[in-house]
Amino acid sequence: MEKIYLDNAATSRNKPETVKKAILNYYENIGCSPGRGGYEDSLQAGRLIIETRNTIADFFNVNDLKQIVFTHNITYALNIGIKGILKKGDHVITSTMEHNSILRPLNSLETSGIINVDYIKCDEKGRLNSKKVEAAINSKTKLIILTYASNVSGTLMPVKEVGKIASRNNIYFMLDTAQAAGVYDIDFQKLKVDFLAFTGHKALMGPTGTGGFAVSKKMAAQMEPLIEGGTGSKSDQEEQPDFLPDKFESGTMNTMGISGLKSGVEFIKKIGIKKIKEHELQLGKVFLEGLNKIPEIKIIGPANLREQMPTFSITAGAKDLGQLSFELDEKYNIMTRSGLHCAPFAHKTLGTYPEGSLRFSIGYFNTLPEIEFTLDALNKIL
Amino acid sequence: MEKIYLDNAATSRNKPETVKKAILNYYENIGCSPGRGGYEDSLQAGRLIIETRNTIADFFNVNDLKQIVFTHNITYALNIGIKGILKKGDHVITSTMEHNSILRPLNSLETSGIINVDYIKCDEKGRLNSKKVEAAINSKTKLIILTYASNVSGTLMPVKEVGKIASRNNIYFMLDTAQAAGVYDIDFQKLKVDFLAFTGHKALMGPTGTGGFAVSKKMAAQMEPLIEGGTGSKSDQEEQPDFLPDKFESGTMNTMGISGLKSGVEFIKKIGIKKIKEHELQLGKVFLEGLNKIPEIKIIGPANLREQMPTFSITAGAKDLGQLSFELDEKYNIMTRSGLHCAPFAHKTLGTYPEGSLRFSIGYFNTLPEIEFTLDALNKIL
Repeated sequence: MEKIYLDNAATSRNKPETVKKAILNYYENIGCSPGRGGYEDSLQAGRLIIETRNTIADFFNVNDLKQIVFTHNITYALNIGIKGILKKGDHVITSTMEHNSILRPLNSLETSGIINVDYIKCDEKGRLNSKKVEAAINSKTKLIILTYASNVSGTLMPVKEVGKIASRNNIYFMLDTAQAAGVYDIDFQKLKVDFLAFTGHKALMGPTGTGGFAVSKKMAAQMEPLIEGGTGSKSDQEEQPDFLPDKFESGTMNTMGISGLKSGVEFIKKIGIKKIKEHELQLGKVFLEGLNKIPEIKIIGPANLREQMPTFSITAGAKDLGQLSFELDEKYNIMTRSGLHCAPFAHKTLGTYPEGSLRFSIGYFNTLPEIEFTLDALNKIL
Repeated sequence: MEKIYLDNAATSRNKPETVKKAILNYYENIGCSPGRGGYEDSLQAGRLIIETRNTIADFFNVNDLKQIVFTHNITYALNIGIKGILKKGDHVITSTMEHNSILRPLNSLETSGIINVDYIKCDEKGRLNSKKVEAAINSKTKLIILTYASNVSGTLMPVKEVGKIASRNNIYFMLDTAQAAGVYDIDFQKLKVDFLAFTGHKALMGPTGTGGFAVSKKMAAQMEPLIEGGTGSKSDQEEQPDFLPDKFESGTMNTMGISGLKSGVEFIKKIGIKKIKEHELQLGKVFLEGLNKIPEIKIIGPANLREQMPTFSITAGAKDLGQLSFELDEKYNIMTRSGLHCAPFAHKTLGTYPEGSLRFSIGYFNTLPEIEFTLDALNKIL
């Protein structure tokens, strides 16, 4: 058995060949910056960016491609959203299952006395009761932030319900799709999202250095840009442009990375997101059944695929999880991730703090034999 | 004659083959995220990042590799520096030759009433008198920001003198090396810099999506992080880590891009920066002599290579510069850039606002026949 990669929640590996080809094509045949030069090759780079915006707008069902903004990664996107919209006195609602990319910006704004945050407590499987979100709304509530699915336990959040609640109460809704985009069908309009943050290098199959957000025009108009600089537009002015996407995109873009991201999303569209999800859920089902048969293992989270995506956190009795992860790699070439997964509140919620858990995250390129081999390895070690 | 790329000030093209190989090697053989998993391939990604930090620290003569922080591009680096260090009431000194990546963040902080800025007026060739910088210092002055060389006229700034002035007056010195790093020998310690912002994809020969800064430990300790999130460190805490480089590096890094950047800087070290500079200056000399012989052309800037780097801005009498740039591309396959180059104050200083100029920027991969062909083309068109 070759190496088995079960860390897809960190980044996707074995990406489609077309992604590599797109990166090489940019590198060898385009190689210049878009939007700042009038020569043909620069225009070609510009077209590539526009086409990618279009591909992503279509993918998330966003009306206007100008609403798609590219950033370094989803953490930058979330910071630009959070720090761009929140002002003195604002109230924010989020859950206890969020990643540090949300917790840390919120925490620094709160400790600086700028905002107040309610962290709605999820249950011991990471599930959120949307009624608690609605109950926490007050007259100062400007923003609700939620992940689509936990990066620790895979728990799916009630995003549809929360989107409705936010919309009904005229509150901005920010969705973190880091784990789910590329596996679940995420519709910007149907879910009533104002700010959809995405990462390029996970299930969207793009390379590192890509990510961004889709933003409603209403919210964008209310936001201050966190990063300002050259945009190739309104270059006669020392003020940042106030229009999308330039308001939030400064400096030279990662055109090489974006060309790969375009191919990644096109790959997903070609296969079909339904088929991708079915494949991953099928593997997840087998893995879950196998995990349930190993008495030492406790599954952290819902342990059913109606309530979670195929990302599984476990503990294994007295067995040290760092050691278990090491043995899986060392003896069986199986790559997993142990620890706190940059989500301390989630582990507190799930009862696995401060020890953490061992996470197996399945991706589209995993196979049934890999899953069976991994279960076999766990059986042998434990 | 093949295509001639004279837009190296925007991004370097025809990068070394080793850079492409490094990108492909990461893509095909590593492909995972550093610092967040304990398995061998993730550790390999981690080592790659550390080696690149080391390469860059050595390149700029920075003491400790932890002082090297990676960002999306130099605009992000400058924003993180400017918005991270400046607080209510601070005074900043900069020049009128700066890029929008400095002007726009400063402008927004000033119009918000947070800081005061003195823009020291440079002369009509873009030259700065360092005495004027010293004269502008007051008791509130916290930061002096200067580009190493103008991206419009190539004018070299008195960075050594200003570094001494800043140091003598206990003021932080921020240096924008976007144009010069990789061509001029830039020594963090000798120049007494506190914050050296660099871009990866210009003369450092790396791919897009790379850049960053070197920061003194003293200044880093005083800065607030602009972007916060998962760092793979102190994951039990919702506070951003306070140590370098994690304080300023959140979310998944562009490991693919960074692997290319490492090879780019290694290429420069192998050739030797002295040789690179000599080659570019030699081409610049020929180009300058040729430009001087075309009566329609006016060179904007010093027009001598002791006072500027080989980036040349011109006007051409009544000839529309966008049209000239277009003809150079269309008829002769020569890529140049016309307009304001995201530096409106520089063009005001140089007397070319709002029309702008046509810019030719030479890189290491340009050749003498290319320069001669370009002069010939200009002679034919004008």
